[in-house]
Amino acid sequence: MNKQRLEAFTDGVYAIVITLLILDIRIPEVPPAALPQALVSMLPQVFTYVLSFFVVALYWFSHHRVAQQVKLIDGTFVWLNMVWLLFVTVMPFPTALLGRYPLQPLPTAIYGIDLILANVTGFVIIGYMKRHPELCHRSIDPPLFGRQVPVYAVTNGTYAVAVGLAWVEPWVSYLLYAAVLAGLMVRFALIPNPLAQGTTAGDED
Amino acid sequence: MNKQRLEAFTDGVYAIVITLLILDIRIPEVPPAALPQALVSMLPQVFTYVLSFFVVALYWFSHHRVAQQVKLIDGTFVWLNMVWLLFVTVMPFPTALLGRYPLQPLPTAIYGIDLILANVTGFVIIGYMKRHPELCHRSIDPPLFGRQVPVYAVTNGTYAVAVGLAWVEPWVSYLLYAAVLAGLMVRFALIPNPLAQGTTAGDED
Amino acid sequence: MNKQRLEAFTDGVYAIVITLLILDIRIPEVPPAALPQALVSMLPQVFTYVLSFFVVALYWFSHHRVAQQVKLIDGTFVWLNMVWLLFVTVMPFPTALLGRYPLQPLPTAIYGIDLILANVTGFVIIGYMKRHPELCHRSIDPPLFGRQVPVYAVTNGTYAVAVGLAWVEPWVSYLLYAAVLAGLMVRFALIPNPLAQGTTAGDED
Amino acid sequence: MNKQRLEAFTDGVYAIVITLLILDIRIPEVPPAALPQALVSMLPQVFTYVLSFFVVALYWFSHHRVAQQVKLIDGTFVWLNMVWLLFVTVMPFPTALLGRYPLQPLPTAIYGIDLILANVTGFVIIGYMKRHPELCHRSIDPPLFGRQVPVYAVTNGTYAVAVGLAWVEPWVSYLLYAAVLAGLMVRFALIPNPLAQGTTAGDED
Repeated sequence: MNKQRLEAFTDGVYAIVITLLILDIRIPEVPPAALPQALVSMLPQVFTYVLSFFVVALYWFSHHRVAQQVKLIDGTFVWLNMVWLLFVTVMPFPTALLGRYPLQPLPTAIYGIDLILANVTGFVIIGYMKRHPELCHRSIDPPLFGRQVPVYAVTNGTYAVAVGLAWVEPWVSYLLYAAVLAGLMVRFALIPNPLAQGTTAGDED
Repeated sequence: MNKQRLEAFTDGVYAIVITLLILDIRIPEVPPAALPQALVSMLPQVFTYVLSFFVVALYWFSHHRVAQQVKLIDGTFVWLNMVWLLFVTVMPFPTALLGRYPLQPLPTAIYGIDLILANVTGFVIIGYMKRHPELCHRSIDPPLFGRQVPVYAVTNGTYAVAVGLAWVEPWVSYLLYAAVLAGLMVRFALIPNPLAQGTTAGDED
Repeated sequence: MNKQRLEAFTDGVYAIVITLLILDIRIPEVPPAALPQALVSMLPQVFTYVLSFFVVALYWFSHHRVAQQVKLIDGTFVWLNMVWLLFVTVMPFPTALLGRYPLQPLPTAIYGIDLILANVTGFVIIGYMKRHPELCHRSIDPPLFGRQVPVYAVTNGTYAVAVGLAWVEPWVSYLLYAAVLAGLMVRFALIPNPLAQGTTAGDED
Repeated sequence: MNKQRLEAFTDGVYAIVITLLILDIRIPEVPPAALPQALVSMLPQVFTYVLSFFVVALYWFSHHRVAQQVKLIDGTFVWLNMVWLLFVTVMPFPTALLGRYPLQPLPTAIYGIDLILANVTGFVIIGYMKRHPELCHRSIDPPLFGRQVPVYAVTNGTYAVAVGLAWVEPWVSYLLYAAVLAGLMVRFALIPNPLAQGTTAGDED
């Protein structure tokens, strides 16, 4: 499998998912006089839209960091990548559901479950790369792998708490999703690609 | 015809089709209390969604394996490729139809007929490459071509049986679609690109 | 302007337009028993879908042939290219209109008018390249340009007749659209890129 | 971060946004006899469609000019680019809103506010590049940066006036949006990339 085509396909999927999210924000059908009020009532949808926009952006960034270490691609890697993409392409559904039923337990939980599934798949992929150093530019040794574990543990642990809280205080779940997202975005901005430590400067992010 | 642009276009089409599938899973419009029940009733749609997601992924993988052997592209190849893409871009329709009318004979059969049409087109393309070795990196000789025949015969034969069973036991048709898909996915994961046997290692999948 | 990015953007637009066409073929909402009849009544939509699929494919192929001769891209070329893309991205509208109102004069005519507008823009682009040989790999000299004129004249002349006939015999208009499309597809399959005559073999289509 | 993948992702997003705009122009559902009148009543939608098409095209062109000077990409640049894309991917919403509620103050103003937000983000990105010459092929020195300021000031100033006029004379707002767009399109066609002055000819646009 040609790495460039897998990346082109993956970039295409991410670009489409992030752009399709807006299609679920339908324009209101009301008399013009009622429009301001109708737009205000759409704010929960706008909030979920922006949240999901950056969630997808973050997964794309994350995919890039993983792919940067990949040299060769075998059939199993293609399917693992596809499972990852499955949980990303699904995003418009929980996003629309949460925008339509704000602060409802089930949509809030489904949103978090999709985040966890995508994250776990990403982690499985790093684990697969660890076991197959022949596929990597630089083998992912146990210490390097070990340093990734707490990041995934904290992220998914927080998501799991947020899923549980969906039935108690859904707005706390929202805050947790947004907080993890913001934390990871800052981390990605400040810390160069941890999987690429030791590689040539300038290409390391 | 520049091979790179045909691949970019083709990757784009596959990326879009696989992402558009989610648009047909509409969020339910019910009172919040009825939401859990409404979501459960959507499970057949989710099943078809996942099935079609991996069907499109498999066609993309298959396209990649074919394209890997292509060196030059003539006008006829472009049109054969377009016919292949036609049957792939159509996928959201039979997918939505089957999700909306689960276990109905006609939607079950239409789904399988589209799979057969796409497969047959892929086979025609390999046949065209066999007759035009000047387009290929490595000519597809009769023994190599011959080894592809049983794979296509078993796949399309099973699909044809599933189409016929749509009027008798539609859920058996579902199982057959899923079984062929799973079998081909495992085959693609385990067996390197059969069209590329003898080419440089590392690029062979 | 980097030629590669303009091509990537253009390929993306074509890939999306050709894939979006299927979204306008909505699944029928009828009792299961009425489904076969409902699907049969969708045949005009299917016909326009397939027609538009290959129309977009042909424009993409045509764009590729033009772009192959382009070496440098200036700002005016970008905008001409955008106008071309405008008439292509619009295609889902006349397609859906014609599928919804089959054999009606106005939709039939609008369909043809969009085809003419896209064609004329393509011709203007070739004319611009003729006047700016510094942008081309191989200058488009008057004889080469002259040989393109009859192709565009016959194509657009036939479309214009079809537009006129929309108010008299719409099905003749359909046949003319399909006939021109089929003729151009055969021409593209059989005749290597006329703009590239004299360039290296193998890259000429 | 690999510059090529960020560009591929960005080109994908732009290609999708510019193509999705047509989806909001729904075909009318009327008796065939009422179709001509129904299509005429859609002209405001068509106007906003064409306006937004070239707005997105212009942002894409603008992104290209900025990206041309970028050599390395750090995490912060990725997020600034994502914020820019956010305001672009949002475009189908204000476009559809303005097409549905033509000449209404709030939709007219929202449209302009999105234009301003996208523009300001583009300007922030240039400012970031000015402060990080290590990311650029050619550092953006104060005089070069200074020459960009009036362009952004005039553009955003005019948009701000148009937003204000939305509550007084909405059609003047329309004219201002269209006039700024036309002015920038001419500027992009006539003036080579100002950020690239001094670089190799032929690559400078």
